[in-house]
Amino acid sequence: MNSFEKLKEKFNTGLHICVGLDTDVQKIPTFLRDTKNALAEFNKKIIEATKDLAAAYKINFAFYEKEGLKGIEALEKTLSFIPADVLTIADAKRGDIGNTAEMYAKSVFDNYLFDSVTVNPYMGTDSIQPFINYKDKLIFFLALTSNPSSKDFQKQKLLNGSFLYKEVIYKVHEWNTNNNCGIVFGATNESELSDSLNVIKALPVLVPGIGAQGGEIEKVAKLFISSGSSYFLFNVSRGIIYKSGKKDFAEKAKEELEVYNSKIKDVLSN
Amino acid sequence: MNSFEKLKEKFNTGLHICVGLDTDVQKIPTFLRDTKNALAEFNKKIIEATKDLAAAYKINFAFYEKEGLKGIEALEKTLSFIPADVLTIADAKRGDIGNTAEMYAKSVFDNYLFDSVTVNPYMGTDSIQPFINYKDKLIFFLALTSNPSSKDFQKQKLLNGSFLYKEVIYKVHEWNTNNNCGIVFGATNESELSDSLNVIKALPVLVPGIGAQGGEIEKVAKLFISSGSSYFLFNVSRGIIYKSGKKDFAEKAKEELEVYNSKIKDVLSN
Repeated sequence: MNSFEKLKEKFNTGLHICVGLDTDVQKIPTFLRDTKNALAEFNKKIIEATKDLAAAYKINFAFYEKEGLKGIEALEKTLSFIPADVLTIADAKRGDIGNTAEMYAKSVFDNYLFDSVTVNPYMGTDSIQPFINYKDKLIFFLALTSNPSSKDFQKQKLLNGSFLYKEVIYKVHEWNTNNNCGIVFGATNESELSDSLNVIKALPVLVPGIGAQGGEIEKVAKLFISSGSSYFLFNVSRGIIYKSGKKDFAEKAKEELEVYNSKIKDVLSN
Repeated sequence: MNSFEKLKEKFNTGLHICVGLDTDVQKIPTFLRDTKNALAEFNKKIIEATKDLAAAYKINFAFYEKEGLKGIEALEKTLSFIPADVLTIADAKRGDIGNTAEMYAKSVFDNYLFDSVTVNPYMGTDSIQPFINYKDKLIFFLALTSNPSSKDFQKQKLLNGSFLYKEVIYKVHEWNTNNNCGIVFGATNESELSDSLNVIKALPVLVPGIGAQGGEIEKVAKLFISSGSSYFLFNVSRGIIYKSGKKDFAEKAKEELEVYNSKIKDVLSN
């Protein structure tokens, strides 16, 4: 199924939370750390507990690459646990010249079979073309990220009166002829989001920065809804998957996801 | 040994070419394609033939990731063939929020033991900090890349009168307290390079875009030398490693590297 359509079906049932699988061997419950395939085992339990309540799963490549071959195996196994109707996002933030970008696109879409990927737009149109050529996939471009240093470059004011991150959003619309583009916009940048909603329009938005990073989910959800858009996907990683360090970690993750879902539900019903 | 010092020793002997191992199963000689570990076998032969004449080897992660587990194995094997006195560059163009960037830094430096890495600066200071914390490594930040679409964002003129890519170079100087930072500046942007040399100063510069992409090596080398800098490292990938598609591919790669080296020698001696 087309990836954006898959995500919209979740939005239609009120699900707007992406569970971020930033799975770190140092942070998973101690009783699991020494088991074989600890990362995959942890993810399996988390996915089993949350799969009916999650709009998407985002796999943060760094955490798997750090473990070398073992990590890549865990990544592949993890993908096999995710039901076909839930969007999978390769959070890889790739970006390179055309022939190299093509290899990265092949890696995430043809090799791993992800539905979606995060891409860094810094190198411009020809660097992102190989990704958007995959018409049925969904590509989230970094516009304004959730970290404090997003001010260094992304918030630079341009001579033409715009900001760099807005220039990215304009370009994303140009790139969106196949209706397979979205953006990343950090929840920590509330006022910028408020200013940008008329530019973002109907693009799907992956929103990191909730929870550990300080973004407020209700406020940000209200912003989207008041602008008439329901294509927002909040990512929560540490706030869900590490809710408990004990045997009940998966159960607690599910409970926390339910808390987030009900917060969204409250906003949607008001 | 400190990575920048390692590179300077090569510069001191007149070596300024980095051999880019953009090794693609579809492009290596046909007689090798079906062998076990084809990528690693190809790289081994290339490295054996060129190791005394190369200033560095750059491993383009995309080409290995595309092959999944097999590719990661090939990457690890390839590293083991490179002599300890030749700089190894992880061309990964990573960039993410702090805790994720830390995982990427661990992956390239602690797991694979690379000397150096390419990093995408779009997310700003906190996203690059985990890389520069490795004092003995060398981090090349994307300033102005060699692809035509570098105009989309990198060449945007800022309200403060500068360009985005120059703003990156200014920041790299701020980040360079451990003398472990460099930049990537594409050879296809000759006039911008000419304008920027007084800003780049003594930063080491990785220069892609020679050969297949159209940059002219003598002209660009002269620019550096006339500005008093000898810290330039030209990357050549396809132009060297695919010089021949036959049994003599490694020998032909060596000959082509010698041609590049003598071009540099001519410029240096004039």
